[in-house]
Amino acid sequence: MIESFRQNFITEKGCLSLMEYDVAIIGGGVAGLGAAIYSGRFNLKVAIFAETMGGTIILTDVVENYPGFKRITGFDLAEELKKHMADYKVDVFEERVSDVRKSGKHFEIQSSERTIKSKTVIFATGTKFKKLNVSGEEEYTNKGVHYCALCDGAFFKGKLMAVVGGSDSAAKEALLLTQWAEKVYIIYRGDKIHPEPINMTRVEKNNKIEMINNTNIKEIKGDGKKVSSALLDKDYNGSKEFKVDAIFVAIGHNILSELPAKLGVKLNEKKEVIIDRNAKTNIPGVYACGDLVDTEFKQAITGVAEGVLASYSAYQYLSNENI
Amino acid sequence: MIESFRQNFITEKGCLSLMEYDVAIIGGGVAGLGAAIYSGRFNLKVAIFAETMGGTIILTDVVENYPGFKRITGFDLAEELKKHMADYKVDVFEERVSDVRKSGKHFEIQSSERTIKSKTVIFATGTKFKKLNVSGEEEYTNKGVHYCALCDGAFFKGKLMAVVGGSDSAAKEALLLTQWAEKVYIIYRGDKIHPEPINMTRVEKNNKIEMINNTNIKEIKGDGKKVSSALLDKDYNGSKEFKVDAIFVAIGHNILSELPAKLGVKLNEKKEVIIDRNAKTNIPGVYACGDLVDTEFKQAITGVAEGVLASYSAYQYLSNENI
Repeated sequence: MIESFRQNFITEKGCLSLMEYDVAIIGGGVAGLGAAIYSGRFNLKVAIFAETMGGTIILTDVVENYPGFKRITGFDLAEELKKHMADYKVDVFEERVSDVRKSGKHFEIQSSERTIKSKTVIFATGTKFKKLNVSGEEEYTNKGVHYCALCDGAFFKGKLMAVVGGSDSAAKEALLLTQWAEKVYIIYRGDKIHPEPINMTRVEKNNKIEMINNTNIKEIKGDGKKVSSALLDKDYNGSKEFKVDAIFVAIGHNILSELPAKLGVKLNEKKEVIIDRNAKTNIPGVYACGDLVDTEFKQAITGVAEGVLASYSAYQYLSNENI
Repeated sequence: MIESFRQNFITEKGCLSLMEYDVAIIGGGVAGLGAAIYSGRFNLKVAIFAETMGGTIILTDVVENYPGFKRITGFDLAEELKKHMADYKVDVFEERVSDVRKSGKHFEIQSSERTIKSKTVIFATGTKFKKLNVSGEEEYTNKGVHYCALCDGAFFKGKLMAVVGGSDSAAKEALLLTQWAEKVYIIYRGDKIHPEPINMTRVEKNNKIEMINNTNIKEIKGDGKKVSSALLDKDYNGSKEFKVDAIFVAIGHNILSELPAKLGVKLNEKKEVIIDRNAKTNIPGVYACGDLVDTEFKQAITGVAEGVLASYSAYQYLSNENI
């Protein structure tokens, strides 16, 4: 609370006045950082909030799909973006935002430490991958336990891979992995996976893919450095111990869209924020970008570009002197 | 012609057969390179054509607006993207494409050296800035003669700047430059500039901007390293010699959309290719990205992201086995 007072100031009449920004960015992953860099370039007064700057990419061991960087760790890519942002005047608040609400024509952003005002808001709160929540999963994340086939599949050329899940996404992950894998197992808890019919046909025709239904992974094992097997809850080829080099978890993710939803931002049936080609939501002055939004193909590079477009749209909106 | 035969092959029946690709990318600027990198990641058979790989960004002295690189020359950014592309199997043809035509379900691409077949086409042919075509313009390009205020404006903090042109774009360039300039002149050949009314109001209210109408620049002068003045065709303050540090030419650009237009791709009134959020054009199997397309805010990062989306859409399209 004291911190909050220190950040604000007392007006001539002796009233407390909140710090006012042009743009408040909620979320510090690559999309939020892209938005901050460009908002800074537009000379806007910018605040960015995130519990940890960098976002989910820092969990990715090696990034080979951000054009311009042949190979960089997710952590280092986030560092480069943070350094880039530091070239501009951006107030960085490593704090969780608990509420974003309308305040007249503007918005109030409330975090664990302060409340600020802003003329525009860019949501970049992203998603959280759903986890198996089994022993070994955390220890071997990025060491054989992965959440993105296109990001990490190529590291396991000629290896045994498993996809966990039964959705269309799980089927597509498995199909993509057949480019590199010796064999891809789809491990699914239900009777039969349920992708789109065309992807079902592709899975059934692909002789690298084998489906293991009515089965769950109970534990992931390895030598401390990499995954070597998974423990199943049912026998496969006479054993519960299942040899595998890489497990791709594709049981969905949670879209972190509670804050924009509460503000009245329109979501689609997946709870993703609906944006147009300029990252505008249905509310004037409110923009969104990154994994949070209804883009079909979500990559670091497309998220950063959406952040750039969000800041452009905010700049255009702020050019109207009635704001 | 011999080259073309060498690239193709003779079928069992002794007929000449053209080399067949999954994706042919026409244009080797940042958007085309982004498309090539991702098409390679999708394990597609890719050809990219451009007279010079790298595109217009290699004309930009310093790039500070590609998130991830705080400061890099345009030339070096293009080099990084080319190195990234070289990690994948991509056939690079440094040749001008003269025709892209339908051939059954597929396409034929004809260059100065060869004809190939491809199942999909990604257009990334970009634009060409219109030039003043006056003495000194070429010598001082990137040394005081520029074509993008957001890219290069910040290099002239506290300096005298001029924008040449009378369109809405010219007015917006001038307004943006006032953030850095001591003063911004708008030099226009006509009676009065003709931006959108709201931008006209902003220009008129901005005391850093001065309009010089019915005037042309005849020559750009400097000390060999940087611009010092322009020679006008009419007196300004009693002299034709006009002191200025940076001239931003904003007289429009030509969209290089002849090839897609000939193929039947729909253009908007600016002759830009109309795409959707996944970089699809109106023709199945044909995609477009970068400065060529109808995006409002065109930046290197957004062009690369569109290239990525184009390759994703091509991959999706090719997953249909009837293609």
